[in-house]
Amino acid sequence: MKKETIRVEGMSCNHCVKAIEGALKRIGVEAKVDLGSGTVKVSYDEQSVDLSKVKETIEDQGYDVVA
Amino acid sequence: MKKETIRVEGMSCNHCVKAIEGALKRIGVEAKVDLGSGTVKVSYDEQSVDLSKVKETIEDQGYDVVA
Repeated sequence: MKKETIRVEGMSCNHCVKAIEGALKRIGVEAKVDLGSGTVKVSYDEQSVDLSKVKETIEDQGYDVVA
Repeated sequence: MKKETIRVEGMSCNHCVKAIEGALKRIGVEAKVDLGSGTVKVSYDEQSVDLSKVKETIEDQGYDVVA
């Protein structure tokens, strides 16, 4: 499992947490949002998803991936 | 139709807007959230709902009604 920490802007409440974690779960990515630091810790199988797909999924929920 | 503006804390994103407007709609209250001012403008029939029910519905969504 590949692990990454992604910085994301615009996550403000528990709805945002659920939206992002839920969307990532649907593509097989385990995710944990930390609102305080504005980060998403992800863990995924590189055989099935890559980091750009992970970032794209976050952006599709309406957030800006910073790094 | 009775109109009121309610001040609410903790509304931060479009998910919050939808959660509050949706919950109020389900009890027959037309609502418009303004994130900038932290207010919810409501319009409702006093025969079927009262202001305390409106405020309770907002609180039930996890927000604090200030005034």
